[in-house]
Amino acid sequence: MEQLNPHSVLVTGSNRGLGLELVRQLAKKSNPPKWIFATCRDPAGPRAQDLKNLAAEHPQIVIMALDADDPSSVKAAAAKVTECVKGAGLNLLINNAGIANGSTLETETPESMAETYRTNVIGPMIVVQVFIPLLRKAAKGSSLKGMSCSKAAIVNISSEGGSITNVLEWQRGHIIAYRCSKCALNMLSKCQSLHLAKDEILCVALHPGWVRTDMGNLLGTAPMTLEQSLRAILNTLGHLSEKNTGTFINWEGNLVPL
Amino acid sequence: MEQLNPHSVLVTGSNRGLGLELVRQLAKKSNPPKWIFATCRDPAGPRAQDLKNLAAEHPQIVIMALDADDPSSVKAAAAKVTECVKGAGLNLLINNAGIANGSTLETETPESMAETYRTNVIGPMIVVQVFIPLLRKAAKGSSLKGMSCSKAAIVNISSEGGSITNVLEWQRGHIIAYRCSKCALNMLSKCQSLHLAKDEILCVALHPGWVRTDMGNLLGTAPMTLEQSLRAILNTLGHLSEKNTGTFINWEGNLVPL
Repeated sequence: MEQLNPHSVLVTGSNRGLGLELVRQLAKKSNPPKWIFATCRDPAGPRAQDLKNLAAEHPQIVIMALDADDPSSVKAAAAKVTECVKGAGLNLLINNAGIANGSTLETETPESMAETYRTNVIGPMIVVQVFIPLLRKAAKGSSLKGMSCSKAAIVNISSEGGSITNVLEWQRGHIIAYRCSKCALNMLSKCQSLHLAKDEILCVALHPGWVRTDMGNLLGTAPMTLEQSLRAILNTLGHLSEKNTGTFINWEGNLVPL
Repeated sequence: MEQLNPHSVLVTGSNRGLGLELVRQLAKKSNPPKWIFATCRDPAGPRAQDLKNLAAEHPQIVIMALDADDPSSVKAAAAKVTECVKGAGLNLLINNAGIANGSTLETETPESMAETYRTNVIGPMIVVQVFIPLLRKAAKGSSLKGMSCSKAAIVNISSEGGSITNVLEWQRGHIIAYRCSKCALNMLSKCQSLHLAKDEILCVALHPGWVRTDMGNLLGTAPMTLEQSLRAILNTLGHLSEKNTGTFINWEGNLVPL
């Protein structure tokens, strides 16, 4: 059975929710990555305490500041990664940071639309722009054939809320800013896959399931635990290849309608 | 044969390109709308001269200032429409204003991403929010059965550039900000259709074709003339019904893949 086995992983928004559980499960693997770059906006703040506790038990976890809204912060993080991996590049970049708010079509505000787009779409775009050289280095330096998440990959954490076909859970909430942003993120992800195919960098948009987090519970009690979602996601990431690049998949690796 | 026959139409970004030709062909119909509200950001500026010349020949055309980025400007326009139509509501709202810029995945800037989203997505959202009461009034006041563009409808001018499946003309240009915005506009359009179905307000996202305008020529010489595109679009709008609401269609009324 194929397995996820990257040398280095970077996760944005890793101080809580999905990102924190992702870092936890990566660190607890029988063959953990050598480097787990766990980033968040404010590692010194009280909302990063759980991540700090986790990192204290796992020396592979390197906590770093990264505010995807701020290109200089992203560049500083990339410089630190470069220093750690010593020429090895970055194998797996997981754009997980994201926001959502409750709103209806008639009450949604321009400010919330702009802020949600900035965090959920522009942020991942900037992070990828800055990390492309490290991803290319990882791809070139790998002995693995074809594409894989163990070699060089971008995983954009999206949502079935961004599916125009399904418009998941519409009756529970319009969440217009969120839906529009995740739909745009799916487009960005497809564009990244086209641009980076020649470099053998795999790109997918991934719906983690409707998971019990602060965000997931915005529309009522979510059916899936974080632990269940992440166990499936890590298994799925281990099986992705070039046939998956540019697709929108769920936690189990099944295609989600656009 | 069914025909487009609204009492009132509002077109944003009508001072040039697609919007101007749309107003021209509406005004030249054998049965023109009684009210054609032709809006643009700066009706007093030099870029509105062609529209002013057109309006001088057609008394149905009412030129109005509307900056979709500015809610107070949209509200002022709605107040003026209300005054003109004297309780009749607005039948057809065409969100046509949009921008595009050349860019690649690696050179796209946060500022251009934000500006493009503000004009191409947030603008149409605000315009619809403000005009919902007038659209509802038109729907309630109409004797027509079911949904139609002659009764009450929102047409969001989108682009096949916003199709994740097709990523039209990728080799000619990445135009990331534009593609992400049009994809998000398609989502907004679907959400509007779901929210307004109970009011019998039809909503579609429409790809006008790759048309010879300043924007169309950004990626090389476009194959279709404005005149051809708009002739087909007006014919298509005349045939839309409730089975089309929430869809993404092209100038001929055919579905575009999401």
